[in-house]
Amino acid sequence: MPKIETDNLALRRGLFFPTAEIYAGAPSGFYDYGPYGCTIRRKILELWRKELVQKEGFVEIYGRQILPEAVFKASGHLESFADPIIQCKKCGSWYRADSLIAEKTGKIVPESLPLKEMDAIVKESKLDCSKCRGKDFSETKKFNMMMKVDVGAMGQNVCYLRPETCQTIFLDFARIYKTNRLSLPCGIAQAGTSFRNEISPRQGLLREREIGQMEIEIFFDSDKINDVEKFSQIENEKLNLFLLKDKMVSKISAKDAVSKKIVSGQLIAYFLARVQQFYQKLGIPLESMRFRELEDTARAFYARETWDFEVETDLGWIELMACNYRTDFDLKGHSKESKQDLSVVDNFGKKVLPHVFELSAGIDRSFYVAIDLAFRNEKRGPEERIFLKLPSQICPYVSGIFPLVKKDGLFEKAYSIFEELSSENFEVFFDEKGSIGKRYSRMDEIGVPFAITVDYDSMNDGTVTLRDRDSLEQKRVKISALSEIFRKLLNGRTTFDKI
Amino acid sequence: MPKIETDNLALRRGLFFPTAEIYAGAPSGFYDYGPYGCTIRRKILELWRKELVQKEGFVEIYGRQILPEAVFKASGHLESFADPIIQCKKCGSWYRADSLIAEKTGKIVPESLPLKEMDAIVKESKLDCSKCRGKDFSETKKFNMMMKVDVGAMGQNVCYLRPETCQTIFLDFARIYKTNRLSLPCGIAQAGTSFRNEISPRQGLLREREIGQMEIEIFFDSDKINDVEKFSQIENEKLNLFLLKDKMVSKISAKDAVSKKIVSGQLIAYFLARVQQFYQKLGIPLESMRFRELEDTARAFYARETWDFEVETDLGWIELMACNYRTDFDLKGHSKESKQDLSVVDNFGKKVLPHVFELSAGIDRSFYVAIDLAFRNEKRGPEERIFLKLPSQICPYVSGIFPLVKKDGLFEKAYSIFEELSSENFEVFFDEKGSIGKRYSRMDEIGVPFAITVDYDSMNDGTVTLRDRDSLEQKRVKISALSEIFRKLLNGRTTFDKI
Repeated sequence: MPKIETDNLALRRGLFFPTAEIYAGAPSGFYDYGPYGCTIRRKILELWRKELVQKEGFVEIYGRQILPEAVFKASGHLESFADPIIQCKKCGSWYRADSLIAEKTGKIVPESLPLKEMDAIVKESKLDCSKCRGKDFSETKKFNMMMKVDVGAMGQNVCYLRPETCQTIFLDFARIYKTNRLSLPCGIAQAGTSFRNEISPRQGLLREREIGQMEIEIFFDSDKINDVEKFSQIENEKLNLFLLKDKMVSKISAKDAVSKKIVSGQLIAYFLARVQQFYQKLGIPLESMRFRELEDTARAFYARETWDFEVETDLGWIELMACNYRTDFDLKGHSKESKQDLSVVDNFGKKVLPHVFELSAGIDRSFYVAIDLAFRNEKRGPEERIFLKLPSQICPYVSGIFPLVKKDGLFEKAYSIFEELSSENFEVFFDEKGSIGKRYSRMDEIGVPFAITVDYDSMNDGTVTLRDRDSLEQKRVKISALSEIFRKLLNGRTTFDKI
Repeated sequence: MPKIETDNLALRRGLFFPTAEIYAGAPSGFYDYGPYGCTIRRKILELWRKELVQKEGFVEIYGRQILPEAVFKASGHLESFADPIIQCKKCGSWYRADSLIAEKTGKIVPESLPLKEMDAIVKESKLDCSKCRGKDFSETKKFNMMMKVDVGAMGQNVCYLRPETCQTIFLDFARIYKTNRLSLPCGIAQAGTSFRNEISPRQGLLREREIGQMEIEIFFDSDKINDVEKFSQIENEKLNLFLLKDKMVSKISAKDAVSKKIVSGQLIAYFLARVQQFYQKLGIPLESMRFRELEDTARAFYARETWDFEVETDLGWIELMACNYRTDFDLKGHSKESKQDLSVVDNFGKKVLPHVFELSAGIDRSFYVAIDLAFRNEKRGPEERIFLKLPSQICPYVSGIFPLVKKDGLFEKAYSIFEELSSENFEVFFDEKGSIGKRYSRMDEIGVPFAITVDYDSMNDGTVTLRDRDSLEQKRVKISALSEIFRKLLNGRTTFDKI
C-alpha cells in the first residue's frame, strides 16, 4: 500500500484524493488532483513533451476516448483484454484470481494461465475471502476489462472507452504520415486517458480505473532497426537491465545490449537510454531504476519483446512505463478489419507496413513515484521539516513571494515583484499570511524550490532574500536580477550555490 | 455547415478529422486533432490558463470523467438533461424534435416545450424525414443525453460520463477551499472532457459527443456580488450585450450594466469584460462578439441568469462560452444528496453556502472559430496565398527555420539555430525540403507567424532573414538577437515593424 506519509501529505495539501469523495459508495480506482497536484502533473507532461517528444522530432496528436467496437476487434482487445476473476459464494465479493492467489500464498501465477489450472490452484491453496473469510469460490471466468458505452439514441453504435491511448495513434497514423510529411522512422505521441474496469482496485494512484497515459509509438522499417542516426550519442550509456536469465540488474551499455542481442536492435536500445535520461530529470535516481525483461507468458498479447521500466520505492518495484515491441500487429489488424491499406511508402520508394516500438508511460504512476521519492522528513533537534525535493522543472511554482510585513509599502513591493515575474511567464505564489516560517513550510511541503522575502532593506537597496528549499541557504540578490536567475536555474545553467 | 475552405485546410494539413475515420460506420460527433491542430488547441488552453485563471488568482484542478449516479441525481441531470426526440416510423431514423422543426420550418421552439405541444407542432408542420421522406413520426419522448458506464465486475456501480466538467469542481470544492486556504470570492478552474449523446450530430467541431471544455466556477457570497475589488479596472469597458428586450447589440459599459440592473451585479459584469478581453487575445475582433441574454425557457435548468458569449462567422452566431449564474443550486443539491455540509466560513466568521458564477467555454468550438476567423485567402495576380492570421500566442510554432540549400554548411548552421531556440523553450520548426516558397507556404497555412532563412550571407555576417507571415516583409537580423526578438514579439512588447 502507498506510503502513509506521502498519502497524508497528499490529503493535507490536496495533491490528490478520491473522486466524488463526499459520496459514500463512490467506486474505487478514481482520483482527482487538487491545484498543487494538478500543476505538478501538468509539468511532468510538459517535461515529457519536451524531452521525449520534441527533442526527438516527434509529433503529438489528441484523439478521442470513445471508439467503435470494430477498433477493438482489430486490436485484439475484444477477445484478449480480460482478467481471470472469481467470486466468493458466501458474500459475493469479486477478486482477480491471480491477485488473490498472490496475496494469500505469495505464489505468482501468470494471468494468462488456462482457467482450469487457475481453478485447481484456487482449490489447492485453500484461499479465503478477504471480506467474509468464506472458503468457497465460483469457477474462474474471464472478465473483459473494457468499459462499454452505447452511442446514439437507441445505442445503435456499440463503443468502448479505449483501454490504451495508443489505438488512436494507429487509427490516425496513415493520415498524419501524409499531412505532416513524415518519413520512417517517426514517432507519434499522445497524452490522454484510458479506462480499465479493474476488479476492486485498492492501490491509490497505482491502480486506477481511469488512467492517465503518455504514450509514444515509434514507427520504423523493421529492416532498419539497426539504422539509428543518433545511436552514437547514447551507445556508451549504461542500461539497467534486469534479465530473466539472471534475475538481477546488470549495467550493460546500449552498444553491448545490441551486439549481445539482448534487445532486438539499436532502435530499442536508443529509446531505453532516453527513457532512463527522462526519468532522471523527473528526480528518480539512476540506481532506483531498472528495465525488467518480461517472459512470454507475462507480455501483453500484442508484444514480441517487452521491457517494463520499474522504479524501486518502499512499496517495492513499481512499473512506470511499458516499452513494447508491438511489431506490425496493430497496423496489420486495422488494415485487415478496416480494409484500408495502412502501409506507407518510404523515401526510397519502398512500400512498408511499419513496425512499432512503444513507450507507454502512466502519468499518475509517474506522478506518484516522483512525489514519493521526493518526500523528505528531516529532524532538526525537536523540529521536523517536511519537504518535497522535486526537480525545479516539475514544481508547482518556481518561487514563493512573501512580504515580511503587510505595512510600510512592503506588501506593494512584494506584489509588484509577483506581477513582474508572472508577466515573464514564471509561475510564482504570493503569500502574505502567517509567520515567515509558516509560509516557508507551506512552500516546502508542495516542493517549491525557492522563496523570495521582501523586507525593509528591499525598500532601500532593491534587494531581496532568496531562500533555497533543499540547503536552506539564503542569499541577497537584486530584484532586477530575479528573472534572469530563475531562467538559468530552471534551464539547469546554474545552481543555487553559484548564484 | 462549417465553411468549406476551413474544413479543406483542416483535412489537408491534418488539423482535425473524424475519429476512427478508417472505419466505415464509426459514429459521428467525434474528432481527433493532428499535430498542428493539437498544438494550437493546447496553446488556446495555455492562454486561457494564463489570462482567465492565473491572472485572476484562481486555481486549477484535474478530475475524473466517470462519476457515480448519485452525483447526477443531486445535479439534476438524471431528471433534466434530456432532449425531445422523435423517430421516423418508416426508416427508423431518430431526430431531435426541436431541431427538425427548426430545420424544416424555420420555427424556433424551446427544447423544454411540453411533449404534447411538441407532438402537435410536429403534426401541424407536416415534417418529413430527411432520409426517406416519410411523414409519419413517433410521439416525442425525452432522451437523457448522459452516457452510462457500468463499473465493477458485475456493473455494481452505475456511473455516467460527466455531461459537464464543472460537477467535479462542485464535488471537490470543500476540500480545495480548505487545503488551498481560499477565501471568498475564489475561482476553481478545470479543463477536461465531457460527454453528450447528441442525436445525429452533423456540425463538425461545433456539435460533438465528446466535448473539450474549459470551465471556471467562481464562488462568492451572494451578499457581496457588488463588492468586487478589481471592478474599477474594467468599469468603463463596453460590453456587447444583446438584450432580449431590443434584439440587438448595445454597447453598454460594465458600470452601466450594473447600475441599470441589466446584470445581477459587479461580479457578473467584471467577468463578462474579462471574457471579451480573453477572446480578443484569441484573435476574435470585438465587433464580432456579443453576449446574448437567454430567456427563461432557453436557460439550462440550473441557471438564474445566462449570457451566451457568441461570435459571428459565416455560419452565423456561434456560442463559445456560457456564462451562467448558477446560484447555490449545485452546492445545495450535493449537500443534500451527500449529507455533507458544503458551506464554508468566510474571513469574518460568517457561514456561507456560496453562489456560483460560471464561465463554461467549449475548447473545440473556440479552436474552430479562431481558425475560421483567421483564415485568409489572398489573391495576388494569378497566385493565391492561403494563411492563418492567428495571434502569435496560439500558433503551432513561433517560427520556421530554413537553410536556403543543404550544402556548404547552411544546413548545419540552420540546425544549430533550431537547437539553440528549442533549448530556450521556443517551439520552432525545421524544414529543409522543397523550394523556399513552398516552405513559406506550408508555414503560412498552419499559421506560423515568422520564418528564418539561413543563406550564404549568414555564414559570413551572422545574420538571417526574418519574414513576417502577415505583411510578407523581410528583415535582416542578427542570429544572436533572435531569442530576445521572439520573446518580445510573443509578449506583445514589440511588433514586427518595430524590430
